[in-house]
This record gives sequence, C-alpha cells and structure tokens, in this order.
Amino acid sequence: MHTVQVETPGGHYPIHIGAGRLDAVADSIPADATAIAIVTNTTVGALYGARLRAALEAAGKPLLTIELPDGEQYKTWESLDRIFDALLAAALDRKAVLVALGGGVVGDICGFAASCYMRGIRFVQVPTTLLAQVDSSVGGKTAINHPRGKNMIGAFYQPLAVEIDPHVLATLPAREISAGLAEIIKYGMIADAGFFDWCEAHVDALRALDDQAIRHAVRRSCELKAWVVSQDERESGLRAILNFGHTFGHAIESGLGYGQWLHGEAVGCGMVMAAELSARAGSLDAAAVDRIRALVSAIGCPVDPPGLGADRWLDLMRVDKKNEGRRIRYVLLPALGQAEVRAVDDDVVRPLLPGTAQS
Amino acid sequence: MHTVQVETPGGHYPIHIGAGRLDAVADSIPADATAIAIVTNTTVGALYGARLRAALEAAGKPLLTIELPDGEQYKTWESLDRIFDALLAAALDRKAVLVALGGGVVGDICGFAASCYMRGIRFVQVPTTLLAQVDSSVGGKTAINHPRGKNMIGAFYQPLAVEIDPHVLATLPAREISAGLAEIIKYGMIADAGFFDWCEAHVDALRALDDQAIRHAVRRSCELKAWVVSQDERESGLRAILNFGHTFGHAIESGLGYGQWLHGEAVGCGMVMAAELSARAGSLDAAAVDRIRALVSAIGCPVDPPGLGADRWLDLMRVDKKNEGRRIRYVLLPALGQAEVRAVDDDVVRPLLPGTAQS
Repeated sequence: MHTVQVETPGGHYPIHIGAGRLDAVADSIPADATAIAIVTNTTVGALYGARLRAALEAAGKPLLTIELPDGEQYKTWESLDRIFDALLAAALDRKAVLVALGGGVVGDICGFAASCYMRGIRFVQVPTTLLAQVDSSVGGKTAINHPRGKNMIGAFYQPLAVEIDPHVLATLPAREISAGLAEIIKYGMIADAGFFDWCEAHVDALRALDDQAIRHAVRRSCELKAWVVSQDERESGLRAILNFGHTFGHAIESGLGYGQWLHGEAVGCGMVMAAELSARAGSLDAAAVDRIRALVSAIGCPVDPPGLGADRWLDLMRVDKKNEGRRIRYVLLPALGQAEVRAVDDDVVRPLLPGTAQS
Repeated sequence: MHTVQVETPGGHYPIHIGAGRLDAVADSIPADATAIAIVTNTTVGALYGARLRAALEAAGKPLLTIELPDGEQYKTWESLDRIFDALLAAALDRKAVLVALGGGVVGDICGFAASCYMRGIRFVQVPTTLLAQVDSSVGGKTAINHPRGKNMIGAFYQPLAVEIDPHVLATLPAREISAGLAEIIKYGMIADAGFFDWCEAHVDALRALDDQAIRHAVRRSCELKAWVVSQDERESGLRAILNFGHTFGHAIESGLGYGQWLHGEAVGCGMVMAAELSARAGSLDAAAVDRIRALVSAIGCPVDPPGLGADRWLDLMRVDKKNEGRRIRYVLLPALGQAEVRAVDDDVVRPLLPGTAQS
C-alpha cells in the first residue's frame, strides 16, 4: 500500500492506494462512530456493495446502505434529499459516518450530504472509477448540479480518508477508463511535463489497465492533486489550474445534456480546445497542441467539439465558477507542464466554437 | 454604536449594534465585491427593502433583491433553490455578497445559500427581529428544515458582519417581541444569573421596547452568545447549552406543524419544561423553576405544553442533533445561571409530556 497525505486547513487525511483496500475500509472508520451509511449507486452497489458491507462489519457498527440511480443526470437535489431522508428515517446522529462507494457523482453527492447533514458529519471516499480515483475523490470538492450549471451548489468539505483499490477498475467499461485517463494526462499538461512524456510512452499499458502502469499513474496524479490542493484548498488561486479543459468541458456537458458525454470525455475534448486557445491567445507552440490532441485521441477521448453555436457556447461558459464579472476566464498553458488562469475576450475564443449542425 | 467581536476558527467578524445601522450596511461590503444580492421576505422587504437598497447604492455595485414568502414553513429547499436560481440567472460570481434582511428564517436560508452557492460566497446579516438580533444572526449556524426535522440540513458558516439596528424592532408585532425575549432570558438562565435578575426587573421596559433596556439586553445577549460560540464554533461541547429549551421547543414546532407557534414561543415553553426536568432529574430547586415559569409567562410566552401524546413527543425529540445513539440528550440547569448537557431516560421525561387532547 502507498499513502499520499493531503494537508489542507479543512482537514489532514491520507489517501491509501493498494490492491485490497476495498476490504480494509473499516481501518478508516473512527472508534466513536455511532453508525455507518454506505452511499452508492445501483451499478456499483451490485458489483461491490456486498463486499464492502462485509468489510465494514469489522467495525461493529449499525450499517445502512443507500442506493441512488446511476448517472450524472441524478446528481441533483432529489438524490441528495433521498440520502437525507434515509439518514433521518434511521435517526442517524452527528457521529454517524458516510462511506461513498462509487464514481465522481456518488462521491460528490455523498460528500455534499455529509457536509450539510446536521451541519456536517464525517465521511470516507471509496472511489471505484479511474476518474474518481485520480480526481474527484481527492481535495474535498463536493457538489450537486443545478439546471443552470454543473456543480453550482456544493461545499469544500474534506473526507476522513480516501481508500483507492485499483483492482475495482477491472469491471469498468473501456469508455470510463478513457474518461479517467483524460484527468491523468491533464496533470502532466498543467504541472509535470515529464509525467506527460511518461503517459505518451505508456498509453497502451494504461488503456489495458496494466497493474504497474495504473498504480504509477494513480499515485502520481494523487500526489500532484494533493500538492495543488494543499496550496489552495478553496480555489482562490492556484487550484483553478486543475480546471484545465473544464470551462469548455462543462459547456459540452451542459449544452448536450448531462450524461451524453462522460465528464472525462468532455474534459478531454475541452483540453484540446484549451490547448488551441493557449496557442491563439498565449505562447503554447503548435507542436505541443498537436501532442495534446494526439494523446487525447490515443486514450480514446473525442477531440472534435460538438456544434452548439458560438453564442450558446459562450453563454454556457459564462456561468463558470472561475469567472469574475462578465469576462470568461480560462486555464491556459504557457508551455507544456505549466498553467495559468486568464480572461480572454469572446472574439478571440469564437473561432474555436463550432456552430450548430445546421449552420 | 457598540461593537461585539466574534472570534471563531471559521471567521472573525464584528456585530455592530446601533440606531441607524440599517443605513450604514455598505460599510460591511468589501471593496472587491462584484455584486450584492439582498435576500429578504415580502413583509420585511415592504418595510425596509427600499431603505436598505438606497443605503447599499453607496457601495456602487450591481444590486439584486430576492424576496421569499414570509414564514417558517418556507424555510425549505424550494426557497433555497429560488435564491440559487436568481443568482445564477443574474450570473453572479464567487465575489458576489449576499445580504440577509429579515428574521431568523431569512438569515438561516440566506446564510446556507451563501455557504453552498459555488461552494461558498460571502454574506452579511441584517437581522430585523429581536430573536434574530440576539440569537440566530450570531454564530454562523445556517440551515433549512426537512420534513423530518427542523434545521436538519445546513452548515456552520460565518458572516462578514452582523448589522443590528434596534429601531427596526418598532414595526415588530408584540408576539414576535415576546418570542425574542425568550432567547434573551435564556442567556440569563444558562450563563448569567445576574442578567436573569436584571431581566426580571426590566420585563415591562423590555416588552415596551424601551430604548435603553433593549440596547442593554441585545448587547449582553450578543456578548454571551459570542463568548460561547468562540469557545465552540461547531457545537462539539459547550455550544450545545445554547439549545436550552430547544429539544422540547423543536418537538412543539414540528409536532404542531412549523409556523403554528413562533420559534421563540416554543422555546419559551420548552425552557419551562427543561427547568422542570432539571428539577426532576437534577439539582435545580423548585423556587428557580417557579421563577423561570413566571418570567416566561411575564414576557408573554406560553408555559403549558401542547398535548401531542408522550410517544410522539419522544419520537420528535429523538431526531434532535444533540443526540448520540438512541438516548435523548437534554440541556439541564444544575442551578440558575449554569447549564450542562445530559442524556435522560425516557421514563423520567414521560410525566412531563402531555397526552393528546382526547386521552
């Protein structure tokens, strides 16, 4: 097992990475917990729910399981309220602990539920998708979507621990592996050019879930994310670079309707667009843009943005949380392995935004 | 103007108490705010909305007003979502500031909205009821109600400042004055026997909103609350004593349906019940119980609990956030001016709980 430590004002906690961690989650349940509620979805619950329940019996606490429907379209107030209702019906108190078993949607909803149930109870992240293991489970961002924008309602709220078992990835559809790899290569683009090179060299091993390659990629991603989050828990500065590709990506998800493209797919395509913008509005060279497009394509993510119409693209991007005032701020790459946040005029962005299919 | 300073891990901020503070709220708007959204209700908005808007024009920021329906029964997700919808429709960003103009319901909803809009923006409390001025606006507790329990969903989230103008109390119905006085005399019961004596001696002046008496009572209440909250922001210990009378009070509100009794009325009656329990299960003498009942009655609050049936009373109290496991914990008074939190067996409590009207 490898441990990456996260140190933020909101909490210090370990990320445990190792085969078999799913069976050892009880290690992260504090002795004074009065009850445990597993929050999962129907898909992951069917695959790993019984195993996690068995593992948590070791903690000797009353155990409850809450299953949500599976999909980004359920990252809503209704799902959140299902959790509250189940916790209140079982009279769970402030010393109960939630355990999020699932991907980013489950982790984000469960974390937000933990942050506001009785004004805050403890929770543990057990991410089961590659994307959640390298991104959403680390750093304490929790949220639900609002009809007017993704992740608009939420909290910064750190877990007690993150338990990552790479073996659970074996049951993941190939499309979700590609989506997770998008976030992994992102860390190389924004913060570690050497890791980007390594990803280029190991892309086939990563897509085949080669044990050693995946363990290295997950660990390095968690280290880089933990470092950024430790500098800036509440995204007042540095942390925004983690949103590279996300301004375009969120517009894709919201414009097409949540659940059409996976979050990682939208981010993959968004990173290609952000790289192109980095060349147009900044100093990134064309060769780097080509390498980024090639690697996004090689991991199996789309590189051609959908036709939403430029005005709609801009409207969707204007609700991004990075913005201040009306100007849209983007994460740009001055060079491969470096990132900065900057406002860019709509006119400069427009040529990158495909019109509708009809136009 | 008098200033009481609140110092918590979640934020340091001033409570300004003084005639005319309503016209000076712009003092508390930071220079880097990108916009201001006033959150109020239809009743308070009609009385003081235009005056606050005029005062905030001084800050020179885009200004938005969001009016909610008036009443505890609207302290719900639907009201919260109305705020989110208005903020997102106006594309307000993370540097926008919310201003809560109203009583406890508006302050609690607005504060919770601030805590989770884009994972947290800043807000200012402008409490317009006596209860909000001495209790709910101070200390950072924010929440909405859930059908299964009051204030079950929320956050600890501190405001930038609290602006208290005692002159706005002039438009308050007498019943709301009584409800506010309940929280004022509570501070005497749990923490300052001398202040309890003072309240007994000045009860007529307080009910008549005598300027000097109200200013002293508001200031002393804020000082006592700020002291408790500074010791224990997240209610892991001491802070729970502020809930004296609230275990019974919440059961009354929830059992009769929110909005039937005012929160302060339910707490007033709940304090009489908690005093009786303090005598039954602890060391409070009968003379102190009598003084408490007499003062609650003198401020104009009910002292006879409604008949809900003992089992329903206990069920309603079991969802209280103070509880750990199945036993109900109560705030008890070992003596007037002192408080402690203790679990009490249901059998000891039962005789205090009136049956249904039919039984």
